[in-house]
Amino acid sequence: MSSGALVAAVDIGGTKIAGGLVTRDGEPLHEVQVPTPAKGEAAEVLGAVHDVLDLLAAHGSWGQVDRIGVGSAGPVDVVRGTVSPVNIPNWRGFPLVERVAAHPAVGGRLPVVLGGDAVAMTAAEHWVGAARGFANALCLVVSTGVGAGLVLNGKVYAGPSGNAGHLGHITVDMDGDPCPCGSRGCLERVASGTAIAAWALGRGWRPDGDDASAAAVAASARAGDETARAAFDRAGKALAAGIAATATLVELEAAVLGGGVLQAGDLLLEPLRRHLQTYAALPFTHGIKILPARLGTRAGLVGAAALALG
Amino acid sequence: MSSGALVAAVDIGGTKIAGGLVTRDGEPLHEVQVPTPAKGEAAEVLGAVHDVLDLLAAHGSWGQVDRIGVGSAGPVDVVRGTVSPVNIPNWRGFPLVERVAAHPAVGGRLPVVLGGDAVAMTAAEHWVGAARGFANALCLVVSTGVGAGLVLNGKVYAGPSGNAGHLGHITVDMDGDPCPCGSRGCLERVASGTAIAAWALGRGWRPDGDDASAAAVAASARAGDETARAAFDRAGKALAAGIAATATLVELEAAVLGGGVLQAGDLLLEPLRRHLQTYAALPFTHGIKILPARLGTRAGLVGAAALALG
Repeated sequence: MSSGALVAAVDIGGTKIAGGLVTRDGEPLHEVQVPTPAKGEAAEVLGAVHDVLDLLAAHGSWGQVDRIGVGSAGPVDVVRGTVSPVNIPNWRGFPLVERVAAHPAVGGRLPVVLGGDAVAMTAAEHWVGAARGFANALCLVVSTGVGAGLVLNGKVYAGPSGNAGHLGHITVDMDGDPCPCGSRGCLERVASGTAIAAWALGRGWRPDGDDASAAAVAASARAGDETARAAFDRAGKALAAGIAATATLVELEAAVLGGGVLQAGDLLLEPLRRHLQTYAALPFTHGIKILPARLGTRAGLVGAAALALG
Repeated sequence: MSSGALVAAVDIGGTKIAGGLVTRDGEPLHEVQVPTPAKGEAAEVLGAVHDVLDLLAAHGSWGQVDRIGVGSAGPVDVVRGTVSPVNIPNWRGFPLVERVAAHPAVGGRLPVVLGGDAVAMTAAEHWVGAARGFANALCLVVSTGVGAGLVLNGKVYAGPSGNAGHLGHITVDMDGDPCPCGSRGCLERVASGTAIAAWALGRGWRPDGDDASAAAVAASARAGDETARAAFDRAGKALAAGIAATATLVELEAAVLGGGVLQAGDLLLEPLRRHLQTYAALPFTHGIKILPARLGTRAGLVGAAALALG
């Protein structure tokens, strides 16, 4: 364990707020967690963030903390230091950086760095995970939605407002279904766990029990159900088109995939790799490595620390 | 006119090879041109490039040249210094940088910088054209194909091999028509002049005379032909989806459009702007400025000089 300066990391999601003291080696040496009062007033949600900071500040190593990294569900605006998480309706343009800086254990002493959750996850995978050593990579989380972030030229590329890499909302089917974001044919509308299950249900697939999740579709696919297999083929195809589009626009060496839907393993990865052969057609897009994410649920926390370290 | 050091610029296309001595203000003060012997042996095509260099070296200002910029039809490999232009079949992995450096007037004295033609055009528009002053922009040429390049963080972003920004070959329709590149549903297969004319012909549009080009489709559209109008609507839609995808991935302030198909004006730009309202749905992608390119046919030459200046 490193004995040097620590980063206090906070990871704000719609379900939980996690906190950690993270070493310069990317190792969380103390972790805490509270539920997110997602439907509460803005001050109540902030209260939960301050609870996490209280818990971290009570740790004997707090004195070694020299900066704070905060990852949040997006959209975020890193220039203004504000967040508007889709799942926390009373935080709209909420001045999170200012309010974290105002915590008694932080104020005036520690710089606060904000990033979106997908960018944080990408920073974590690039720092100590599967994207380590790659100068140009895309990191994805395929779950109820599809989140992603970019590494360009050896560094996480967050873009001017901190939102770059929003692969889930690029259009892969210009005449496709409307997306709640307002666009059409978004990758997320085809490849997320939610979309996989909805597509299978719409084509007659029925779960054995009450569970109509992508995991249940995967179980049926393993048992030989053609519709269930086709749902994963289509998701893999959309992911391949999206990864190829990214490689065609910015050049990629690797794509790192994590999130619950990856539990389907080769049911998703086999079609993804197969379709990537088609969509990644230009020679400079050949040979993209498809790799499993390494950090799992800790990616947000480790990534928030990574962002604070720049 | 600047009296300082000059850049010798060479722009290699499938039809012509242009050369110029370009000032530090982006002004070509002497221009030359020879036809490209595109179907000739590799040495013959190189001979034409050397002819251009001979013509430039004969100019009284050659002594002020301190570097060479070369833009070439792609794909290119800027690491190896090689080019494989689709329209010059005998140049495959051709060591262009080495062979330009070997010209007697260049050898040993002048550094040679290579870039792809779309990246060069982008560098020109960013240096002295419509993308000037924008830190994050996409520049497109919509012609027989669709070429494009990126400005990120205030600089042209060419990617590790020099091919970033290949917007014409991102998939906007994952189940769409096969593209000669090997992929499917590429933007170029919907939005290029070639694609506009082919789509209109396929749906019953007939030109008045022998000219079945996108320009003829535009003339019919202006005369009220619904199929012709629909062809431009569809092209504008695909361009909107592609520009929005780029903004969603890397954040954009502006998209600059040039090339022959832009002669159609609002026939293309009106649907493009309208569909962009749909596809650029996430708040951080709002407000992208759609601007006409300023440099026209000189973009390649001025851009090759811009690349040499870094």
